[in-house]
Amino acid sequence: MPRTPDELRLLVEEYLERLELTAELGTLATSMRYALAGGGKRIRPVLCLAVGEAVGADAAALLPAAAAVELVHSFSLVHDDLPSLDDDAVRRGRPSTWAAHGEATAILAGDALLAEAIRLALSYPSTAVARELVAATIAMIGGQQLDLEGADDLEGLHRLKTGALFRASVLCALWAAEVPPDEHPAWRAFADELGLLFQVVDDLLDGDGYVATVGEDGARRLAVATAARARGSLDAVPGETAVLAGIVAELASRTA
Amino acid sequence: MPRTPDELRLLVEEYLERLELTAELGTLATSMRYALAGGGKRIRPVLCLAVGEAVGADAAALLPAAAAVELVHSFSLVHDDLPSLDDDAVRRGRPSTWAAHGEATAILAGDALLAEAIRLALSYPSTAVARELVAATIAMIGGQQLDLEGADDLEGLHRLKTGALFRASVLCALWAAEVPPDEHPAWRAFADELGLLFQVVDDLLDGDGYVATVGEDGARRLAVATAARARGSLDAVPGETAVLAGIVAELASRTA
Repeated sequence: MPRTPDELRLLVEEYLERLELTAELGTLATSMRYALAGGGKRIRPVLCLAVGEAVGADAAALLPAAAAVELVHSFSLVHDDLPSLDDDAVRRGRPSTWAAHGEATAILAGDALLAEAIRLALSYPSTAVARELVAATIAMIGGQQLDLEGADDLEGLHRLKTGALFRASVLCALWAAEVPPDEHPAWRAFADELGLLFQVVDDLLDGDGYVATVGEDGARRLAVATAARARGSLDAVPGETAVLAGIVAELASRTA
Repeated sequence: MPRTPDELRLLVEEYLERLELTAELGTLATSMRYALAGGGKRIRPVLCLAVGEAVGADAAALLPAAAAVELVHSFSLVHDDLPSLDDDAVRRGRPSTWAAHGEATAILAGDALLAEAIRLALSYPSTAVARELVAATIAMIGGQQLDLEGADDLEGLHRLKTGALFRASVLCALWAAEVPPDEHPAWRAFADELGLLFQVVDDLLDGDGYVATVGEDGARRLAVATAARARGSLDAVPGETAVLAGIVAELASRTA
């Protein structure tokens, strides 16, 4: 009986709570844990675990990869919120990391979250998980720079800023579960639809991005079509995909 | 005939100049190259190549590891110089990266230098080079946080802020050259003496650190004793160490 998304979410929360950070980080661990405990929905690590279970891997073996993806996500939020970037003093209803711990510590905490993420990804025997995660991280950073410059290619921007880490959530699970690379393309197609779905719904909730370019109705139609394609792409992957279809439905209907 | 430190430095410069950064980084490549081209002495990558040659490896095969260490060093300088950290608008006689390219871009350029460094370290078949580099990066970040807090344990601080990356310069070469782990401890002892020597001479040049705690004469005596121990530690390592002895002499007598 595969675990439900909520059960996977609980596994992620427990793992993150118990995660031992490297001792040399000293007091920086406090701000890193603050950033990590921000009440996020853990969509990416849950996706990573669900893909792992779909291909028959044990969720426990996938947890370091799933947590690594979440730490990279957290690193990006901590740095993006900084005064010289998006200047967000509030994140999910509480002070953002720099607002709570100071700018200098937030910069270092973000750096350390990235480094610890890669340390986790390097706990697998092959370099593949870490390579996938680092490639996504680089794309994401490039996307943030593009955003700073005021990019007008919304789709290209989203592919970098959001899509890359969604893809890594799926691909890291495949590498960790040692799924042969010739089975990856079908999964990648699913990951890309899911990343787009997440972004369109995000824009609908925030009233920006796709809502600004194609209007609210247009964005709603895009979300419905993307969710259908994401579900459809699951037909092409080998494995037990009922839980993943549930994640598609959850992403399509989320309200926060 | 092993290469001299100056020949190795030239190899590093050429490699860094030709280094292809990931295309997705877009315009961020400009600020990253600015940070990398700052006229540093390339001590760490030269050390990495020299250790590689000492154990019989080809310098060309060591270049990705050597460059990875230099990119991590560059990442740390870019972030340490930021206004909310050391607030240094000048580095090596020209505007620091944030002063030249803006704070937001400097934060992202630092992030990207770290990520690209790890990408290079992941070009080896085993995870060992990347694991060594990430461990050193984490220690260094912890050291920077300790420094922010005004640590009074100077030795512990230096071990994290400077020592960790010197050790990685040596150890990454050993992992890349596939030197058996039972030969590592003697190299580690050399790396630790060399890191301390670098730091004491740095403090002598800057008139702070050890000069503030043990006085200028005390720091000079410490430098002489550490250089002697570094040379001595080379007797214990298997390999052709004449070039490394030259690096010790160079570090002991540097004036900038």
